[in-house]
Amino acid sequence: MTIQVKATAAHPAVTTEQISETDKRHTIHPWADLATAPTTGDLVISKGEGYHVYDSDGKRYIDGIAGMWCVNIGYGNVEIAEAIAKQAQKLAYYTPFGAMTNPLSAELARVLAELTPGDLNRVQFTTSGSGAVDSAIRFVHFYFNAIGKPEKKHIISRLESYHGSSYLTASLSGKQVDRTYFHYMDDIIHHISCPNPYRREPGLSLEAYCQQLLGEFEDKINEIGADNIACFIAEPIMGSGGVLVPPTGYHKGMKALCEKYDILYILDEVVTGFGRLGHFFSAEPVWEIIPDLITCAKGITSGYQPMGAVIISDRLFDRISGDNAPEAAYFTNGYTYSGHPITCAAALKNIEIIQRDNICEHVREVGPYFIERLKTLEKYDIVGETRGNHLMACVECNISGNPVAAEDKDITAARTVDKFCDEAGLIVRPYEALLILSPPLVIDKEGIDQLVSILAQSIEQATEELKAKGLI
Amino acid sequence: MTIQVKATAAHPAVTTEQISETDKRHTIHPWADLATAPTTGDLVISKGEGYHVYDSDGKRYIDGIAGMWCVNIGYGNVEIAEAIAKQAQKLAYYTPFGAMTNPLSAELARVLAELTPGDLNRVQFTTSGSGAVDSAIRFVHFYFNAIGKPEKKHIISRLESYHGSSYLTASLSGKQVDRTYFHYMDDIIHHISCPNPYRREPGLSLEAYCQQLLGEFEDKINEIGADNIACFIAEPIMGSGGVLVPPTGYHKGMKALCEKYDILYILDEVVTGFGRLGHFFSAEPVWEIIPDLITCAKGITSGYQPMGAVIISDRLFDRISGDNAPEAAYFTNGYTYSGHPITCAAALKNIEIIQRDNICEHVREVGPYFIERLKTLEKYDIVGETRGNHLMACVECNISGNPVAAEDKDITAARTVDKFCDEAGLIVRPYEALLILSPPLVIDKEGIDQLVSILAQSIEQATEELKAKGLI
Repeated sequence: MTIQVKATAAHPAVTTEQISETDKRHTIHPWADLATAPTTGDLVISKGEGYHVYDSDGKRYIDGIAGMWCVNIGYGNVEIAEAIAKQAQKLAYYTPFGAMTNPLSAELARVLAELTPGDLNRVQFTTSGSGAVDSAIRFVHFYFNAIGKPEKKHIISRLESYHGSSYLTASLSGKQVDRTYFHYMDDIIHHISCPNPYRREPGLSLEAYCQQLLGEFEDKINEIGADNIACFIAEPIMGSGGVLVPPTGYHKGMKALCEKYDILYILDEVVTGFGRLGHFFSAEPVWEIIPDLITCAKGITSGYQPMGAVIISDRLFDRISGDNAPEAAYFTNGYTYSGHPITCAAALKNIEIIQRDNICEHVREVGPYFIERLKTLEKYDIVGETRGNHLMACVECNISGNPVAAEDKDITAARTVDKFCDEAGLIVRPYEALLILSPPLVIDKEGIDQLVSILAQSIEQATEELKAKGLI
Repeated sequence: MTIQVKATAAHPAVTTEQISETDKRHTIHPWADLATAPTTGDLVISKGEGYHVYDSDGKRYIDGIAGMWCVNIGYGNVEIAEAIAKQAQKLAYYTPFGAMTNPLSAELARVLAELTPGDLNRVQFTTSGSGAVDSAIRFVHFYFNAIGKPEKKHIISRLESYHGSSYLTASLSGKQVDRTYFHYMDDIIHHISCPNPYRREPGLSLEAYCQQLLGEFEDKINEIGADNIACFIAEPIMGSGGVLVPPTGYHKGMKALCEKYDILYILDEVVTGFGRLGHFFSAEPVWEIIPDLITCAKGITSGYQPMGAVIISDRLFDRISGDNAPEAAYFTNGYTYSGHPITCAAALKNIEIIQRDNICEHVREVGPYFIERLKTLEKYDIVGETRGNHLMACVECNISGNPVAAEDKDITAARTVDKFCDEAGLIVRPYEALLILSPPLVIDKEGIDQLVSILAQSIEQATEELKAKGLI
């Protein structure tokens, strides 16, 4: 098309239909279904307030998913908006390359070092969780090459994991339904089973199940050869793969095996970081491990700005820097927008608010209440299980009765519940047979009651519809 | 460390020394030299205004590099700051996944479709240039798999190119000095020569040189087999690889070969987009080609917000979507922060300003003056060549007299000039034997005169120092 059109002024899309039409015509959304994307209308979200969002027709929803696991302090926060505006006027950007920095980037790095456990004191900033994980893996490769162990480059990840959408991180991810027509790396990435207690072999105790998982990991290490393995990467609780809470002792056991075989442990806290499980980082207080690297994003700015970070152990960094640096040790990884002053200003204010308003404490108070209220939904026949930890949870539908794997009709059940939630003003995230929930952390008991009440009503409506269709 | 520290309130780093100390202790910067990073002080930039930035001691610099090729409309723009603030209060974030959108994302996609040539009307948003290129390659893979040509997955890139810092895009990049201790893909990526007229074989005409490059490309295609090649990716002018301006006819010739062999052409306009060469996109007005995909970032928000995008031909999208979509055509690529409302608000305002203030026209006016003024520096013995296009330029030092490749002493020459520029209050970007220049597009003739004058003086000072050291 012509480049002369004064495009921003012309044809402003104002009605929902116009916005949706424009969007469908010009945007390829993440996870779009290309068969229906060109013709299916969009849900246009145009305003947010606390734990509610409003669509462009003014309909209000409880945002049961906090955007995408990220709007931790809730919508419409004026303090962050002001911090962003102030920094935008002072210094919107300067390059972080080499020995250039800005005051906010330096300060945020220090704060992240404080918030992370052990000697995780070295930060590289990115603009997304994908970038954080991609950079973490690249750091690990750099590390082993720099210390003279170039053969240590293989990575062990898990089925059903989600670690991002770059070529590398999508290849690390183990969600089989996400593997469509793309090309994936198959040379240095290996996937082992994920912990999914609900779908474990019937009759197996949780303890035995945990041992089975640890045993599989050790077998895989021996199969590849520890000398060839750089790292293991894991989400504390697998998020978009289905809120899979590992059995007690799983992370400690996996960490112990990593230590035994000189394999680095990357804990991917992109979803769990910044309060979702009641702590800034869940590694030490929840799982009792100190990983070698932690990746984060999302909650770091409560979604107000695009940002991610990888925080790295001093022990690793010191071994390859300063006097220990090998020849020409240029760390040629990082982004134009690493440590962007405005995103750092948003993150600093966000962390200040979480601390000042005791949001982690609040999550530790309402989180168990949320999980307990969800448990009441297990009385419904179509619900197989509800599970989670604090404000990260899901409802798993099971109408097939299949204990080992969800069937198509279970997926239909979840989609039907989702449809009724949507009508009633509750946004949840349907995934296979699950309804995933991760509300803003500022949700109170009243909001939780409303959320669970809409879920219950939607489950009842769905049950009627599924019966009418002869599916149950 | 403990997680209880009220970190944002405690120990605020206020002096330059403190900021630098904090930064060195906790940050791993992109392209850091790990040998010196822990001990070398930082340049801390804390304020910006127009085409000037200020360090934390108040020293003013002409920003000869626009941050990192990105602050196109200049620093301290109040209108963008206000647009960002307004959107932050209204809707800071909502998920772009599936069929969810927000009004600003839809509108920006439409505007980008207007600004790009031909039928490039489909946009996927990212948070960085790396993400844009990574997504472009993934789209191309998806495309060929979806139309039943899975063997078309190889990519041809060029030596000295720069396409990003994710595992995939760093592997695409061909800058040999950037290849340090990381691991790189070597299965589906191939590099051919870059166009570097200054370093071409002595005596070869530009026409013959162009034919040589086109011939090498065709030979490479035949070597790999066109049926195995998905795409070719190229910067219009190679940026951080050394402002390498291709000979006339190069891009048209490469595009013709791509068409001949059914290879997609990705034009990486991350650096050249949004006015640097006097047009929003240089593809059609400067190079007379309509690529299949264009990637952009940086200037899209003038660096005020982290954002990137890939704009894709309708022809490609239509072939794999709607009724033409293969089974289960989920486009499982994209980011949490794709189409982030605040970054879109910044981009829309930025584009509005560039249009309203006729910044492209301004660049077309002052650009040739800039190049002409730089040419006057060729009178100095240590300058081998100055080159560029509009506000993208460089000075190449050559004291060795080697016509084919820079030697160590040439690199020393460039670094010496850079040191004197820094002292005199001009930030340039030293790279090998080059000083790279890409000032904010709002620079005027007076600013250009000052910039070139500092360069001239620094070259004179460097000449004295190099003589004193016996290097010339």
